[in-house]
Amino acid sequence: MKRSSILQVIAMCAVALITFAASRSGDEAAPLFGIKIPPGYRDWKLISVAHEAGNLNDLRAVLGNDVAVKAYREGKLPFPDGAIIARLAWEYVPSEENDKAFGRSQSFVPGAPTNVQFMVKDSKKYAATGGWEFAQFKDGKPDADAALLKTCFPCHEPIKARDYVFTQYAPNP
Amino acid sequence: MKRSSILQVIAMCAVALITFAASRSGDEAAPLFGIKIPPGYRDWKLISVAHEAGNLNDLRAVLGNDVAVKAYREGKLPFPDGAIIARLAWEYVPSEENDKAFGRSQSFVPGAPTNVQFMVKDSKKYAATGGWEFAQFKDGKPDADAALLKTCFPCHEPIKARDYVFTQYAPNP
Repeated sequence: MKRSSILQVIAMCAVALITFAASRSGDEAAPLFGIKIPPGYRDWKLISVAHEAGNLNDLRAVLGNDVAVKAYREGKLPFPDGAIIARLAWEYVPSEENDKAFGRSQSFVPGAPTNVQFMVKDSKKYAATGGWEFAQFKDGKPDADAALLKTCFPCHEPIKARDYVFTQYAPNP
Repeated sequence: MKRSSILQVIAMCAVALITFAASRSGDEAAPLFGIKIPPGYRDWKLISVAHEAGNLNDLRAVLGNDVAVKAYREGKLPFPDGAIIARLAWEYVPSEENDKAFGRSQSFVPGAPTNVQFMVKDSKKYAATGGWEFAQFKDGKPDADAALLKTCFPCHEPIKARDYVFTQYAPNP
């Protein structure tokens, strides 16, 4: 399979994951790696934000536990074992209220949550996937489609120089 | 002055603030209220994210100190004294790297930081502006244009029902 075809499959899978996650129920632990939602992840520190247009059409926040954020701030790679990175996403919706204040249509804010993904670093346990485990949850339940989750690492693989992590630390304004 | 005209002025001022902030230097404390950048604000918890299109063209994160986030999570209004809300913003730039992984142009990430704004609650000290002080900083320096900062509260005034705070808490995915 050519690289471009793989990337297309990954992009389609990402959309499919979101589309079908709502209709699924699963065990608490995610497949492939068996991780659960790290308690208190919403209290973690901000790494960055993003907007994915297209079919995903979301707003995102990327948070990290103390181990991950320390590594980011010190510019240390690879991330040490114990680092966890969380990617939260919400539907991308216009804000009438904000637009009214600005006097023009320009403001987009989080709508309904879509899902949360985690990357958990354990260089020995997950050596086959760059030292990272990957998981996705919606409404507190893990995505149960192991075949789709297997696409996570191949997608992150080109970012080997940054220890397979796409998101870069957004500097302080 | 009609309300629509006031809103236009506020929108223009917001753009002007960003445009001119880079060429200004000032004291450490912000005018009007004299506040400084709260130490460690980047460690605060995530309230929400946003994208402003148009002339602002930025990606934003809104963080809160413990007092603010507790009030948000418990749905308690008005915010208690001591609550501080921070709005960080960065230029809105496409990510070639992410687009390559997704196989299409869809990904937008933070570019250079633009500025950081704070709302600090002290119901007695700042009674004239709904109990809030407002400030904006760029590169660690406060915006020195008091006339422009005076537009903050009039813009927030329509949101009296939520204690003059636009941003709502983004629920956990």
